[in-house]
Amino acid sequence: MTDRLDMVRVRKTSRLLADGRELFYFDDPGTEAGRRADVADQRALPAPAAPSTIRFDRLLGEWVAVAGHRQTRTYLPPDDECPLCPSTDKHYSEIPAHDYDVAVFENRFPSFTLSATETDGIEGDAISEDNGFFVGQPGFGRCEVVCFTSDHDAAFSSLTPLRVRTVIEAWADRTVALSAVPGIEQVFCFENRGEEIGVTLSHPHGQIYGYPFLTPRTDRMLHNAREHARRTGRNLFADTLEAEVRAGERIVVQNANWTAFVPFAARWPLEVHLYPNRQVPDLPALTDAERDDLSHIYLDVLRRMEAFYADTLPYIAAWHQAPVRTDRELAYLHLEIFSIRRAPGKLKYLAGSESAMGAFINDVQPEEAARLLRDAVR
Amino acid sequence: MTDRLDMVRVRKTSRLLADGRELFYFDDPGTEAGRRADVADQRALPAPAAPSTIRFDRLLGEWVAVAGHRQTRTYLPPDDECPLCPSTDKHYSEIPAHDYDVAVFENRFPSFTLSATETDGIEGDAISEDNGFFVGQPGFGRCEVVCFTSDHDAAFSSLTPLRVRTVIEAWADRTVALSAVPGIEQVFCFENRGEEIGVTLSHPHGQIYGYPFLTPRTDRMLHNAREHARRTGRNLFADTLEAEVRAGERIVVQNANWTAFVPFAARWPLEVHLYPNRQVPDLPALTDAERDDLSHIYLDVLRRMEAFYADTLPYIAAWHQAPVRTDRELAYLHLEIFSIRRAPGKLKYLAGSESAMGAFINDVQPEEAARLLRDAVR
Repeated sequence: MTDRLDMVRVRKTSRLLADGRELFYFDDPGTEAGRRADVADQRALPAPAAPSTIRFDRLLGEWVAVAGHRQTRTYLPPDDECPLCPSTDKHYSEIPAHDYDVAVFENRFPSFTLSATETDGIEGDAISEDNGFFVGQPGFGRCEVVCFTSDHDAAFSSLTPLRVRTVIEAWADRTVALSAVPGIEQVFCFENRGEEIGVTLSHPHGQIYGYPFLTPRTDRMLHNAREHARRTGRNLFADTLEAEVRAGERIVVQNANWTAFVPFAARWPLEVHLYPNRQVPDLPALTDAERDDLSHIYLDVLRRMEAFYADTLPYIAAWHQAPVRTDRELAYLHLEIFSIRRAPGKLKYLAGSESAMGAFINDVQPEEAARLLRDAVR
Repeated sequence: MTDRLDMVRVRKTSRLLADGRELFYFDDPGTEAGRRADVADQRALPAPAAPSTIRFDRLLGEWVAVAGHRQTRTYLPPDDECPLCPSTDKHYSEIPAHDYDVAVFENRFPSFTLSATETDGIEGDAISEDNGFFVGQPGFGRCEVVCFTSDHDAAFSSLTPLRVRTVIEAWADRTVALSAVPGIEQVFCFENRGEEIGVTLSHPHGQIYGYPFLTPRTDRMLHNAREHARRTGRNLFADTLEAEVRAGERIVVQNANWTAFVPFAARWPLEVHLYPNRQVPDLPALTDAERDDLSHIYLDVLRRMEAFYADTLPYIAAWHQAPVRTDRELAYLHLEIFSIRRAPGKLKYLAGSESAMGAFINDVQPEEAARLLRDAVR
C-alpha cells in the first residue's frame, strides 16, 4: 500500500516485518518511486515479546509500566550490526530496504503493544486486588522507532531542512494513525540523543509512544491550564509564550511562525522550548507554512544548543501534544529540548532532590543560557 | 556549646567554621568527651557564595531552584584532598577535628541558605513580574552535609549499628532544629551514593535540605492522601503498608517496628520502601526502640540491595518526612531507597518518557526483585 501525503509530496509505503510488525517508509519529495517496496524481510524472527503491564501508584496517582522483557534489548551493537541501518546482502537489519529516507517501525522491545489486550498481562488480565490497592492492566499501546536517515554517522542536526520536513510528515502521519486507536490517550514523539542519556543505538533515530494513559507531566500541566482558563478565560501556554516574548531576555530565536525561548524556571542546564505562534493541539494541526518554518527553526535551535559546550551534547527533544480525546483546547503543541550537560565533561544528574522529591536545582541562569544561545555560532 | 542528647547518650558539640558556617559533631556513646571541641578551623575562607533563587514554574505549578555558583563546587578531588576527611597537619578539610564519629556542617555550595533573605535574590528581592508569570524569591533555606564516618573508604552499609544509631540521632536533631526555622517548610535527609548518580565526593556522606516550599512529589502524595482520608477516613500510607503486608509477595524483611517492601508500582529496577509499623510524621517522633530497630533493618536492607548485582550499587536513600507546618497527620515517615542499576554494567536512564513526560518504564518485575532481595546473602 502506498499513500501519497499531499502536502509536500512525501510518499508513504507500508510493509510488514517477518514477525508481523508494521514498517512505514516515508520518502523525501523527489526520491525515486517504488524502490523500497520490493524488498521483503529475510529474517526468521521469534514471536514478539510478551507485553508489559501498567500498574497504578496510589501514593502518587500515576501509572508505571513494568516491561521485564526489555532487559534483553539490543545494547550498543558494533556499527556493522546496527539494526537501524539499511539491510545489506551480509546484514539483515530491522529495515529490509537497501536504502531509505525516513523509516518508522514497531519497536521489537516495546513498552506498550496493541496486542496487549489479547494476551496475558500480570498472569492474566487486568488485576485489581485488595480493595483497589493493586491495580494493573496489560500494557496496551504502541512504541515505534523513527529512523531519521540511513546515514549511521549523521545526527538530527545534520539533516537537511527537506529531510526534517519529511520527519515532520512522518510524526504527523503517525500521530493521526495512533490517535485513531481506541485506548491510546496520548501520542508522544521524541528523540533521545547520546550515550550519556542512555541511548543504546547510536544511529540517528527517535521514538513515538502511544500511551494508554495521560502522562503525569501532561496531566499536571493541563490541571494548571484548566485553573488558569477558569480564572482568566485564557490559555496558560499562550499567555506564557506572550509573557516570554514581552520579557524578551530569554528569547533565543524566532521566525514568522515559531518562537524559541529558555523558560523562566528552566530545570536543566540547557533547556529550550519551541512554540508555534498560533495555538494548535498537535503536529497534524500545523499548516504547510508552519511545517516549513519548523524544519528550519528546529535545526537552528539544535545547532545553537550543540555549539553551547565544547563537548558532545546529549539531549532529549520532546513533543508535547494535546491528549487524543480530552482537553484539546487547554493544550498547546510545543517542543521541549533539554540537555543534562552542565559543563564540558560534566553532567547534571538527577539525585536525591530531583529524583526523590521532584525539586530541581539548576546550576545555570536561564537568562545567561539564552544570551549565549542567541550569540551562538551555528 | 555541648548538648547531651539523652536517648542514647550521643553527645553533640557545636562549632563555627572560618567563614561563619555551622558545624556539629555527634559522638557515638562511649567516645571520649571533649576532644573535638578544641580544634579551630585554620583556613582563610572566602565569604560564602551568593545565594540562589527559587522560581515558580507556572505550567507545572512547581518551584525550581537556580544556583549558578554551584558550578564551581568541588568535583571528584584526589583522596588526599577530600574535604570530608578529618583535618591533618598537612591538609585542612571542612572538618577541623583530627577525628570524628559523625559530623554535620553547612554546605559551602548550598542550593538554599538562611542568609538568602538578607541579600540579593534575582538582582534584588523577590520578583513578581508580568502579572505573576515570573515569580522568583531568594533561595531561603538550608543545605547541610552529614559525614557518616571519618573513614574515607567506608560506606553506609559498612557502618556498625551503633554508628547508624548516632546518624539517626543527628538526622532527628537537625530535623528538629531546621523545623524551628520560620520559612523552612520541609526537611529532607538523604544519601546519594555512587559516581553513576552524580556524587562528586566519594567519602561516605549524606545531605539534609531544608526547603522553603513543599517539594512536588510530597505535595502530590499528600494530595492523594487527603483524598483518601476524605473518602475513607483512613491514612493512605498506613493502608498501603497494610495491603503490602497482606499481599506478602513484595515484602523484603520485617522486624518488630519496621517493614521493608518493594512497592507494587516500583519505578526503579531496584527500589525498597521502609516504613515504621506505627504511623509517625518524622524521625524525631520515633521512640528509642524504633530507632534501635531502624539501625539494624536499614543496614540489612542496604546490604541485601548491594548484594543484588555483581557490581557496585549507586543508590539514593530518601527520607520522606511530614511537612513542618501542614498535613502532619496525612503524612507517614518512610524511607525510599532506589538504584539506577538495572544489570551489572548497565544503568537505568531517565530518558524521554521519564524525564519529559514523567511516565516511568521499569524493566524489573517488583515481585521478582522482592524474591531475590529476600533470598540475598548479606
